[in-house]
Amino acid sequence: MPNYLAFASDNYAGVCPEAWQAMAEANTGFVSSYGDDPWTAQACSLIRDTFETDCQVFFVFNGTAANSLALASLCQSYHSVICHELAHIETDECGAPEFFSNGTKILTAPGAEGKLDLAAVEQLITRRSDIHYPKPRVLCLTQATELGTVYTPAEVDAAGAFARQHGLRLQMDGARFANAVASLGCHPGDITWRAGVDLLCFGGAKNGMAVGEAVVFFKKELAEEFDYRCKQAGQLASKMRFLAAPWSGMLQNNAWIKRATHANRCAQTLADQLRAIPQVELMFPVQANAVFVSMPQALIDSLHRLGWHFYSFIGAGGARLMCSWATEESYIEALVSDISELSGHSC
Amino acid sequence: MPNYLAFASDNYAGVCPEAWQAMAEANTGFVSSYGDDPWTAQACSLIRDTFETDCQVFFVFNGTAANSLALASLCQSYHSVICHELAHIETDECGAPEFFSNGTKILTAPGAEGKLDLAAVEQLITRRSDIHYPKPRVLCLTQATELGTVYTPAEVDAAGAFARQHGLRLQMDGARFANAVASLGCHPGDITWRAGVDLLCFGGAKNGMAVGEAVVFFKKELAEEFDYRCKQAGQLASKMRFLAAPWSGMLQNNAWIKRATHANRCAQTLADQLRAIPQVELMFPVQANAVFVSMPQALIDSLHRLGWHFYSFIGAGGARLMCSWATEESYIEALVSDISELSGHSC
Amino acid sequence: MPNYLAFASDNYAGVCPEAWQAMAEANTGFVSSYGDDPWTAQACSLIRDTFETDCQVFFVFNGTAANSLALASLCQSYHSVICHELAHIETDECGAPEFFSNGTKILTAPGAEGKLDLAAVEQLITRRSDIHYPKPRVLCLTQATELGTVYTPAEVDAAGAFARQHGLRLQMDGARFANAVASLGCHPGDITWRAGVDLLCFGGAKNGMAVGEAVVFFKKELAEEFDYRCKQAGQLASKMRFLAAPWSGMLQNNAWIKRATHANRCAQTLADQLRAIPQVELMFPVQANAVFVSMPQALIDSLHRLGWHFYSFIGAGGARLMCSWATEESYIEALVSDISELSGHSC
Amino acid sequence: MPNYLAFASDNYAGVCPEAWQAMAEANTGFVSSYGDDPWTAQACSLIRDTFETDCQVFFVFNGTAANSLALASLCQSYHSVICHELAHIETDECGAPEFFSNGTKILTAPGAEGKLDLAAVEQLITRRSDIHYPKPRVLCLTQATELGTVYTPAEVDAAGAFARQHGLRLQMDGARFANAVASLGCHPGDITWRAGVDLLCFGGAKNGMAVGEAVVFFKKELAEEFDYRCKQAGQLASKMRFLAAPWSGMLQNNAWIKRATHANRCAQTLADQLRAIPQVELMFPVQANAVFVSMPQALIDSLHRLGWHFYSFIGAGGARLMCSWATEESYIEALVSDISELSGHSC
Repeated sequence: MPNYLAFASDNYAGVCPEAWQAMAEANTGFVSSYGDDPWTAQACSLIRDTFETDCQVFFVFNGTAANSLALASLCQSYHSVICHELAHIETDECGAPEFFSNGTKILTAPGAEGKLDLAAVEQLITRRSDIHYPKPRVLCLTQATELGTVYTPAEVDAAGAFARQHGLRLQMDGARFANAVASLGCHPGDITWRAGVDLLCFGGAKNGMAVGEAVVFFKKELAEEFDYRCKQAGQLASKMRFLAAPWSGMLQNNAWIKRATHANRCAQTLADQLRAIPQVELMFPVQANAVFVSMPQALIDSLHRLGWHFYSFIGAGGARLMCSWATEESYIEALVSDISELSGHSC
Repeated sequence: MPNYLAFASDNYAGVCPEAWQAMAEANTGFVSSYGDDPWTAQACSLIRDTFETDCQVFFVFNGTAANSLALASLCQSYHSVICHELAHIETDECGAPEFFSNGTKILTAPGAEGKLDLAAVEQLITRRSDIHYPKPRVLCLTQATELGTVYTPAEVDAAGAFARQHGLRLQMDGARFANAVASLGCHPGDITWRAGVDLLCFGGAKNGMAVGEAVVFFKKELAEEFDYRCKQAGQLASKMRFLAAPWSGMLQNNAWIKRATHANRCAQTLADQLRAIPQVELMFPVQANAVFVSMPQALIDSLHRLGWHFYSFIGAGGARLMCSWATEESYIEALVSDISELSGHSC
Repeated sequence: MPNYLAFASDNYAGVCPEAWQAMAEANTGFVSSYGDDPWTAQACSLIRDTFETDCQVFFVFNGTAANSLALASLCQSYHSVICHELAHIETDECGAPEFFSNGTKILTAPGAEGKLDLAAVEQLITRRSDIHYPKPRVLCLTQATELGTVYTPAEVDAAGAFARQHGLRLQMDGARFANAVASLGCHPGDITWRAGVDLLCFGGAKNGMAVGEAVVFFKKELAEEFDYRCKQAGQLASKMRFLAAPWSGMLQNNAWIKRATHANRCAQTLADQLRAIPQVELMFPVQANAVFVSMPQALIDSLHRLGWHFYSFIGAGGARLMCSWATEESYIEALVSDISELSGHSC
Repeated sequence: MPNYLAFASDNYAGVCPEAWQAMAEANTGFVSSYGDDPWTAQACSLIRDTFETDCQVFFVFNGTAANSLALASLCQSYHSVICHELAHIETDECGAPEFFSNGTKILTAPGAEGKLDLAAVEQLITRRSDIHYPKPRVLCLTQATELGTVYTPAEVDAAGAFARQHGLRLQMDGARFANAVASLGCHPGDITWRAGVDLLCFGGAKNGMAVGEAVVFFKKELAEEFDYRCKQAGQLASKMRFLAAPWSGMLQNNAWIKRATHANRCAQTLADQLRAIPQVELMFPVQANAVFVSMPQALIDSLHRLGWHFYSFIGAGGARLMCSWATEESYIEALVSDISELSGHSC
């Protein structure tokens, strides 16, 4: 029987073995709470090794909190954050950034394939400079983007230069950062601190963990008192080891890249097979683990009737088909087969 | 070798087998995210069964968030919350309730053995009724208290009547609710909704889970839009099953009570043995899993030098010795033996 | 010499005689503070008489606060407010609504001539209904609009019906409410409570007062505890009589309408004369006290060089020429004469 | 007939002639809004001259806003502010500081005669240094105090040294700053910037203005973006000249000191006469414009029955009798005569 939930979201997958194993190993005996424990120290250390820089690391419970706390720490309430009009912080966090920052305004700019058009950003932030409008303070990139594309190192570099030029800080929403690194085959530093990113929200859940994201400050002075901020905002885990240990499990032996590479490859396979079906059109380059396709509404309805789950309100419309560490080839076959059949196309 | 961390905090313990097992069982295949999954449905259902009432249940990441979101949902920013002067929301949440509610003021009242003195509360809330001072809106009980004591059903009843009489809502911080129920041997409904409690923050972590607390609305109309509130505040888990499943593991077969009973019994044992040592004095009745003792500072220092961890800034001073599901008899023996020896007392 | 500041903003004008006189009369002897005084009682009573309904009235310091407190009282932080994309709360209050409400999101919809297109609003609020996006709660109309147009009673009626149908509350930003009533020649109740408006922010400053706006709750139950909200937000005047008395001065003898009628008539005169100049184009119907014109950039620059002040970043671009109670015919002549001359047009 | 309202509050008085005259003079013609006008420039310049230092000045609507915005600019939400337990920000602003700062906690310390005991403050801020409790950031002095006493220059100096030593910023709530300077006969710089005060909330209303306080940053770098903060918080007046001009009226010719001196002298006179009545006891040294007396409850009740207004819930209890610029000798005589008569004492 096909796994009808397999392509709805990378959040529908469970915990991958490496993360689970690390969590299990951490479950022995008593250790200090709130992060003052060896598992947390090790995970922080591995993140520093991974990025090859002396960054400051904090573990929080989810991506909404990671982004919102990060932005709140970079902004005052009368500032603005500029992001892509399809960015998660604008479209899917129910006003969390505004809540955590007590009113920071999110301004959106367009851009092809889910990537910010810096010329449009420039226009947006230079149009007003009076005190009746929030003062631009942070530029936010989503890597990989909400549309399954990936900023190249050169593109992140350009954003970094742009941010410096305009006195903005550069934050990266990396809910699918692993997929981006796996896709680019680059060093993680090349699309972060070496390119001018001040702060990365490094996603764990979509990569295969149960819960938790890492907030990584490459400019360490920006991390001052961030521990207080986490505590006050209900984002300091008492039994921190269970948030931290999975990071060690994933970063050791490069499991984070292997798992993301698998998800990306599944998306490629799915895209390749769908490309062959006349009624189905790929909407964006498939560079990470998402495949967006446009299909006739009747076909979408038929797929839903068969039992397939996928979202069509995300991003720019169309059907979003997500792959994850848990996607199996047989699921892809089952989905492609159903689409082919429904569209009257013989594979 | 003695386990020097064993008595520092019930947060130093890991995950108990029932919670772990349930989490492991939930880690199979794809399920919907954000709580729309069978594990979450089951856990909610078991909580309703446990309380024997049709309450509304939400799972959040930790106790600070549970309390703060609960209070924010019961208050406006210009209201006040009345709690004991040693309550966690006042002393150990770094201003989280004020942050989540955008400024609600916490007013504290005294009370013997960590329990609110209702006469003192009455004085506090009737002293002012002008708009220059926050308007009292919520009464907060901590059960079990920060000092290891427990409100009896009659005491909760009295607080419930008091709250109704003064137009206050009644919230219960139940970070150690299991220990209270285990101690009283009562039905959990008897110290919550049947006694007038509107909302319980039901603690999971200190009872043996990895992460997560349940916010339980006994007055269902108060729960309106609480899901939005959780989402916006970064407290909606994407892979919710890993927060919810452990509740099923704990509530089935009464494991939550068994684990709490064990912790309470360890505290009794520890207290009994310490009572015999002349230099050590029990500060409060031992009704849950905490033992507060006063000892000569030299004795405290010697214990720390030996390696023992415990806190002395919590509550009313003295040394706080916490037991948990993971406490073993041998740890108690080791600690008592060291104290005896250091105090020149032969057991 | 021409009064080069005369058309920059209705905030550039001083205090009109009726408001001043009332303030002067209030400046005698001791009276109770914080609104418990006869001047405030009289002003509230006159507002009730003016609207012919038993509304609840609060005086605050300015329009930003009036709008923001009003919205905060109608919303929770996870709600959204829908307004026109050129509405003041979106474009000119530096994130104040988000700040006062602790994160309420403002969603904007388009609409010709500065008036909301209800079909566009419907699309906006029905596109999403999941908890990952703020829940629509308030519809906001600006009357008169930022572009100097005015909603007819029928249009406000339609917005009221729409709001009821979608479970939204209806707030009116009436910074230039007097100009709207003067323009329509209607009863003020016809474009507020009789049409379904729940709450009006009734502007005083632009009508001729020194400071202060009235927040008028037509649904009295919504006003519950609004006095606390004002106090906490720094919007409760100690010497309230000086905010309240001018309202009496303006409402008695219909001065508020006379002053607004004058401003509107000046705008008509100005528009009529500019219409005759080929290089100048009126951008919107002139229904209140604003005239928006498009002119060649060279002409705009020349006017600025001559010394004329006016803004061109407000609304949809072009030059905004504002009239007020203090505009004199000679200023209009001087401006038109300069424009004519610069554009090579002989009057 | 006695003026029964004369001693209830210095907020019950109207606007003094110098402030009124300046406001009237400012009411001519068009001027730029939002503070970009000559009246505002002049007022700022006069404040700089008065303090003999290049401070940064902002005018806001009232004292609650002045204090709250000041504290919000000095703090993050997870910080704490330390003030006297009777300070206005704790007891009479309905949680405004917590609201504006999104959760900053106010911690209170005792101290005789309304003045902070620095030893008690030290104990308070050194008791905890973990992230579970807000981090101390600002020390707040009220000058003159809520009990009508005044910190000497040496006492402010000591507070300044203490603040520097503990890494705290020093804010002064100067709602009655004029009364303090008049009482001490010192240079205003001696009890502010020369003594280490970073920021003064300089009160206008109680000194004789209609509305408005000045926020004075002595450390100019702390004022960065404070204009945005004011705007977002609804504290930027459009017709700023009417807030600013009265400051010029008061600061020129030393009217602010003369008016405060008068109020202080009235308080002295009142105190001297009450001292002679056996049943009346002065509670604190009379150093500014407040006289706190303890009287038998029957006497208090009789005075209220006669019609006299005064508050007895402020500060430490007793009756608070306030003098102001508008107090006249005959009012004092009338009050003293009534008290004498009621207490059976012949003057």
